[in-house]
Amino acid sequence: MKNYIFLFFFLFGVSVNAQIERVEPPFWWSGMNRSEIQLMFYGNNIAEYSVSTPSEMIVSNIRKTENPNYLFVTVQTEGLKPATYNIRLSKKGKKSMSYPFELKQREPGSALREGFDASDAIYLIMPDRFANANPSNDSHPQLQEKADRSNPGGRHGGDIEGIIQNLDYLEDLGVTALWSTPLLEDDDPAYSYHTYAQSDVYKIDPRYGTNEDYRRLATEMEKRDMKLIMDYVTNHWGAEHWMIKDLPTYDWVHQFPGYKNSNYRMTTQFDTHSSKVDTELNENGWFTSTMPDLNQSNPLVLNYLIQNAIWWIEYSGLDGFRVDTYSYNEKEGISKWTKAVMDEYPNFNIVGEVWMHDQAQISYWQKDSPVGAIQSYNSYLPSVMDFTLHDAIMVMFNEDEQSWADGMVRAYDNFANDFLYNDIYNLLVFAANHDTNRINEEFDGDVDKYKLAMTLILTTRGIPQLYYGDEIGMRGDKPAKGDADIRRDFPGGWAGDEQNAFTEAGRTQQQNEYHSFTKKLLNYRKNNEVIHTGKLLQYAPLENVYVYFRYNENDRMMVVINNNPEAQPLDLTRFAEGLAGATSGKDIISGEQISLDQNLEVSGKSPLVLELK
Amino acid sequence: MKNYIFLFFFLFGVSVNAQIERVEPPFWWSGMNRSEIQLMFYGNNIAEYSVSTPSEMIVSNIRKTENPNYLFVTVQTEGLKPATYNIRLSKKGKKSMSYPFELKQREPGSALREGFDASDAIYLIMPDRFANANPSNDSHPQLQEKADRSNPGGRHGGDIEGIIQNLDYLEDLGVTALWSTPLLEDDDPAYSYHTYAQSDVYKIDPRYGTNEDYRRLATEMEKRDMKLIMDYVTNHWGAEHWMIKDLPTYDWVHQFPGYKNSNYRMTTQFDTHSSKVDTELNENGWFTSTMPDLNQSNPLVLNYLIQNAIWWIEYSGLDGFRVDTYSYNEKEGISKWTKAVMDEYPNFNIVGEVWMHDQAQISYWQKDSPVGAIQSYNSYLPSVMDFTLHDAIMVMFNEDEQSWADGMVRAYDNFANDFLYNDIYNLLVFAANHDTNRINEEFDGDVDKYKLAMTLILTTRGIPQLYYGDEIGMRGDKPAKGDADIRRDFPGGWAGDEQNAFTEAGRTQQQNEYHSFTKKLLNYRKNNEVIHTGKLLQYAPLENVYVYFRYNENDRMMVVINNNPEAQPLDLTRFAEGLAGATSGKDIISGEQISLDQNLEVSGKSPLVLELK
Repeated sequence: MKNYIFLFFFLFGVSVNAQIERVEPPFWWSGMNRSEIQLMFYGNNIAEYSVSTPSEMIVSNIRKTENPNYLFVTVQTEGLKPATYNIRLSKKGKKSMSYPFELKQREPGSALREGFDASDAIYLIMPDRFANANPSNDSHPQLQEKADRSNPGGRHGGDIEGIIQNLDYLEDLGVTALWSTPLLEDDDPAYSYHTYAQSDVYKIDPRYGTNEDYRRLATEMEKRDMKLIMDYVTNHWGAEHWMIKDLPTYDWVHQFPGYKNSNYRMTTQFDTHSSKVDTELNENGWFTSTMPDLNQSNPLVLNYLIQNAIWWIEYSGLDGFRVDTYSYNEKEGISKWTKAVMDEYPNFNIVGEVWMHDQAQISYWQKDSPVGAIQSYNSYLPSVMDFTLHDAIMVMFNEDEQSWADGMVRAYDNFANDFLYNDIYNLLVFAANHDTNRINEEFDGDVDKYKLAMTLILTTRGIPQLYYGDEIGMRGDKPAKGDADIRRDFPGGWAGDEQNAFTEAGRTQQQNEYHSFTKKLLNYRKNNEVIHTGKLLQYAPLENVYVYFRYNENDRMMVVINNNPEAQPLDLTRFAEGLAGATSGKDIISGEQISLDQNLEVSGKSPLVLELK
Repeated sequence: MKNYIFLFFFLFGVSVNAQIERVEPPFWWSGMNRSEIQLMFYGNNIAEYSVSTPSEMIVSNIRKTENPNYLFVTVQTEGLKPATYNIRLSKKGKKSMSYPFELKQREPGSALREGFDASDAIYLIMPDRFANANPSNDSHPQLQEKADRSNPGGRHGGDIEGIIQNLDYLEDLGVTALWSTPLLEDDDPAYSYHTYAQSDVYKIDPRYGTNEDYRRLATEMEKRDMKLIMDYVTNHWGAEHWMIKDLPTYDWVHQFPGYKNSNYRMTTQFDTHSSKVDTELNENGWFTSTMPDLNQSNPLVLNYLIQNAIWWIEYSGLDGFRVDTYSYNEKEGISKWTKAVMDEYPNFNIVGEVWMHDQAQISYWQKDSPVGAIQSYNSYLPSVMDFTLHDAIMVMFNEDEQSWADGMVRAYDNFANDFLYNDIYNLLVFAANHDTNRINEEFDGDVDKYKLAMTLILTTRGIPQLYYGDEIGMRGDKPAKGDADIRRDFPGGWAGDEQNAFTEAGRTQQQNEYHSFTKKLLNYRKNNEVIHTGKLLQYAPLENVYVYFRYNENDRMMVVINNNPEAQPLDLTRFAEGLAGATSGKDIISGEQISLDQNLEVSGKSPLVLELK
């Protein structure tokens, strides 16, 4: 009822006075750690109005900018009960206006929600390309780009309802968390399907659904004990963002004389020799001309982004963020943003995209990093992505022979540098994502190589992440055909699709081979704590065979990745430390019991995962 | 006179009683920081004797081992004046023996000697391949391998006298320090020319000269204000070492059931996941079957190595050590060894061979490393080698075009990680050494590429090191023909050589082009402090052109390395921070004055080094 009145009033107010066009955040919650809220009022010449609130709500600051259409009103909500508080805007000779600012009741346990962690397996989708359950929202009258499935880089119509309808598929596959690329409104005239150039960050793009649909997705996932991760963009907005078209302050975004693109030299963030122009260009140059770079050293901007992030967590019940282009952000600004979110939700998780090719450089960006500490830098970011492992995966399984540094040694060498990280269990491990080449393209459709890669991803330390379609062998050639080719539609996601790969019957035999291996391993992983939190013990690869163990006080696993095309005998005496007296092991793929009394032979280009006894 | 008596007695003692065959160290010095000296007596059943010393020399420990031919006698020398102290060994029923242990007078300033640093340029030679001034010592009756210049991997006869006779050449070239690969006795039956498998570490190999010749080399260098760096091997001795043939203790070297080669997995030194067998194999496995691995966790061994190292510094007047295979040593042992040497000579310098391909991993081994600190490890090693820069040099000058990460970006990216090091001015920078391929082979004889590489090496931060013959364009193909091919004889070092490249007249026109460029830059570098200690400011390469500055309060240099085959115009406004208002610069190669008012064009595949005004 309250909501209904609010909606009525809001529409009425806008239509009659044309003044309070927006208030952001539109509402907040009672009992939040962040109780001082900076409300942004937007409307024609709204800065000319004075503000009054109910006596129990203290206004601690009113901030005007050079643009009279914005008014920033900071209110104290500490100790205030859930209720609606009318904020009154008045001006002599004008009709006064009122905004019913609601402090909602929080969900129980909201503050201490547990984010995704190494007990999860994350499935990454691009929602426009996954499943289209509601064809009626494929285009929207107020948004520029219309659906065109015949255009590889166009909008294809996938939506939130499509995800919800396929949660059973994901649950059955064995993944426990979903990272969807962004769903907030992106009104770019082209390529809006990637949705990283957002035009309204308080609103789900209507071509994907509504804010309420997104909440429902979270609720449906929670029912299945699955977690939802939002892809958050702090670095930039889209050129079509409504605030970009009427900037609150000139320095809301980074501006240069003329257009300046980022030089993408992320190393300038710590390079003690870097020229100022390079450092500034990396941080402040625009990612592309359609993505104005946000100025997080402007406290209004930073605060807006912090409040927006917390709002989405609290509103939709999120379990984590993936933060886009993390290391392009202003270094201090992104640290403050991350700390603010984590201060509100101390058990939450955030993984940042730090696309670098050196463990020290990646480690730099993780919370309490010993590498960041060299420069007294702390990002407060709990999780980073293991891009160096990804680099290895992209080449090593195509190397049939092992010389000094290649083949499985690439994986071994990657983990040898783990001491550089503060928390290796909070590294995202992955074979591919929406920006890298399709892994099954790299493997040229060789399912054996896929099995080796998945075995590694799903049994090493860290949080595994799969990319939609990998589990059915989907291909796509980014170097040759561009991004759209690695973001093809999932077969069966559209009514009338020739094939429905969401069902066993709909999949080809080969697709089922990919799928059943993935499912088997994912479901095994789900319930085995030793893979989530156990220690890793690794052996230097010989003959392109990589052997490692995961162990804790109670359990012990042996993993063999034979990347050699020939079957390889293993002298088990070498692995005494890892075996710790075990005499047999259960092959978790075949279910067979294997004796470990003598030599063990592992078939060519095959993995072996043994639960030791 | 004293020496003469000592020699007489020593020979007499050996021949009659055959008991005191060796005492090591043979003498020491008064006033050393390390005043507690463990003298090792060697002789048949010498452990059966009791020890007495003059009353002013206290024996603090007598240590016997399972081998009765060794007796370790620790004496206190603190406060003792330079003199000879007779140490008496006696046994009931046997004739007693005496050893005149001399404490020599130290050279003035010995303790505070300044090691090599970034004001130096180091020239690396393999002495067997540089110059043969004394053909009479090419072979030696007591040493197995005889000279055979027709064998690429044999001994060719170069010697210390050959180095001494060519010091004028080196001084004229502009190098200020010499690192010679080892000169101590190596009695291996083959490949002894590399001299890393030593058979007596208190004695210069007679095929190179005498201990006195080595001292003379140091003295001759000091006259020219040049520094001498000894190549020290702590990790192993040769299988022909006299003590290996009569081991003082079984655990003097690392022994396994059967022969075990090192796995060369140096990452096991910090890999928190490493299996114990791999860690042990790296550290304790033998480098090759002819190089028994010393057990530095045996205090007798460690002490022997420390005393030997200090003995050579004090005896021959060294300015530095290069330590072979530093990261194969026992981690704690080598740290103690390094600290002991540096405690004796706090201003000395030691550079360790840490042949890794990752800055964090290399940094780990440098003194006070923030990376080593992650594992509370401190090697106390002042200097490490910039192998990642070497990796870049081996490929980038052959990359005519620049994509995202190649061409000159490889250098730029290398320096971007400098924050990982504790002391970037104490990094050895080099294009090649005796173990890498010849740089002019990599460049296929292209002198322009050589000039680019030398410009980088000689003007960036750190201590440059050249490899003998690079300055005349010497080639050699290690991948195709093996080590011997990169260690060819320097032309003119042997009487009767067809060519004498030590003289301008003897060099070909092309050789002179290499030589004169190198000489010009080296001599310029020698007197320009801003290159030694100035800060580095670098710009992200564009079009394969790398621009950087070196600067201090007084001086400023601009270096342009145009690795693009086409001439490149530079918009100087971008470099305002580096130029700091300079309006002209002196091209230090051509001597011409260049205006910096407008655009600057740099020829294809050319360097430009400007002294700014």
